Amino acid sequence: MQPIKVYADRRSQPSRAVIIFCRANQIDFEEIKVDLFKAQHRTAEFRKVNPMGQVPAIVDGRFKLFESHAILRYLASVFPGVPDHWYPADLFTRAKIESILDWHHSNLRRGAATLIMNRALAPFLGITPSPEAAKQAENLLVQSLGSIESVWLKGDSKFLLGSPQPSIADLSLVCEIMQLEILGDDVRDRYLGAHEKILTWIDNVKKATSPHFEEAHELLFNVKALMQSKVAAAAHQPSSKLKIASKL
Amino acid sequence: MQPIKVYADRRSQPSRAVIIFCRANQIDFEEIKVDLFKAQHRTAEFRKVNPMGQVPAIVDGRFKLFESHAILRYLASVFPGVPDHWYPADLFTRAKIESILDWHHSNLRRGAATLIMNRALAPFLGITPSPEAAKQAENLLVQSLGSIESVWLKGDSKFLLGSPQPSIADLSLVCEIMQLEILGDDVRDRYLGAHEKILTWIDNVKKATSPHFEEAHELLFNVKALMQSKVAAAAHQPSSKLKIASKL
Ligand SMILES: N[C@@H](CCC(=O)N[C@@H](CS)C(=O)NCC(=O)O)C(=O)O
Ligand SMILES: N[C@@H](CCC(=O)N[C@@H](CS)C(=O)NCC(=O)O)C(=O)O
Repeated sequence: MQPIKVYADRRSQPSRAVIIFCRANQIDFEEIKVDLFKAQHRTAEFRKVNPMGQVPAIVDGRFKLFESHAILRYLASVFPGVPDHWYPADLFTRAKIESILDWHHSNLRRGAATLIMNRALAPFLGITPSPEAAKQAENLLVQSLGSIESVWLKGDSKFLLGSPQPSIADLSLVCEIMQLEILGDDVRDRYLGAHEKILTWIDNVKKATSPHFEEAHELLFNVKALMQSKVAAAAHQPSSKLKIASKL
Repeated sequence: MQPIKVYADRRSQPSRAVIIFCRANQIDFEEIKVDLFKAQHRTAEFRKVNPMGQVPAIVDGRFKLFESHAILRYLASVFPGVPDHWYPADLFTRAKIESILDWHHSNLRRGAATLIMNRALAPFLGITPSPEAAKQAENLLVQSLGSIESVWLKGDSKFLLGSPQPSIADLSLVCEIMQLEILGDDVRDRYLGAHEKILTWIDNVKKATSPHFEEAHELLFNVKALMQSKVAAAAHQPSSKLKIASKL
């Protein structure tokens, strides 16, 4: 069988979720890098893969698919070797996982991604950051983290919904939270420090998918290191900011 | 069998989608009104149904579920009488529908709901509207409508993805677009006027679910009429604005 093609930029949280899922489940894939900082997602060629111009996207034979949650459901359903816990066949358990996946978009993701865009990435992408949007996003992030801990991680559960093993919802949400690394250790700790259960849960997801989790996040930590040093430098030499994008 | 309980406010687009789906598929349900304008979604009692404090939510026996897309998938899966076209068993077709459902949250819904909140509902809910958020949301709405038409309604298809019959994605997205009525005829036409395919598609979804579609949207049109007259009145007497909420 032809390996599937995964179009991804590992600096993108949903891209990492798909890559980790494939590796953890021995799904054979070819990774095709789409560099967001070089606007490779805006090319006519990539639009043929995903007309919405976003990563991740996959191509399986003649079948094309975008949206990470749809991709994860699809892979869990068509590859017979994927253990049931990732996307349970039981309709009640599955429905609860769907509820988390849907909630994610307008809550944790909207909060975290908008905050990171406006507090960290905007200048590197030539976008004017909005303090108003950042503030609103911060509120949504803080509220979302609180909800995850009190609703889905209540009790002593290793994974969401009291499950002893991870689902695609665990993977998606944890990859999103990992993106907070970009904001630097202090800021990350400000949001996560009080959430012991979330910290343990992140660690559980990491262990359950090791070493693929660490490997898929390597680039993120490189970007973090580079960004921290560039931000420090830019504080002294504001005009150098615009040259940073190409280095990330 | 006990009918399921559907917690809903018919002024909410995802609430209407769930109600229309139940009616169109003869799923027996008890509708429990949660009045958002009276903050009934913030009560301790409702938090026991949905800890996130949002509508719609359902209770089926001891099973509780929130997030409209998760609810629609669940209902289509557990009620054997629901025709396959709503949520096809075929994994490829289903995956494409999932992709639309996921895309919806961060695009059409985020655009439309944020725009309507900031251009129409905010003063009635005691929220300060943000012109910046409204402008960004408008861009996202316009872009989203363009994408729906060019990607999923291309050719002469009656429904999304070239399907001859509607899926839960058609229902969810059309209920969202219907919310634009709140902005008044002129504004609605400004967004939809150029999109002939979208207008035909809305009509197709309406016909496929008639008379339930019209019935579920009755309240929206009442609110629209009341809001238009109140907005006109408030333009003359700004101090009357705060009294409007209780009337809607
Ligand atoms: N809901 C989508 C989100 C995809 C997304 O936002 N991708 C970002 C990177 S994290 C992207 O491609 N951004 C480029 C753009 O929107 O122009 C998913 O889960 O796949
Ligand atoms: N993604 C959710 C959205 C639910 C939602 O936003 N509900 C709104 C009404 S349309 C609500 O309950 N708002 C009250 C609040 O958020 O406080 C779904 O599809 O069910």
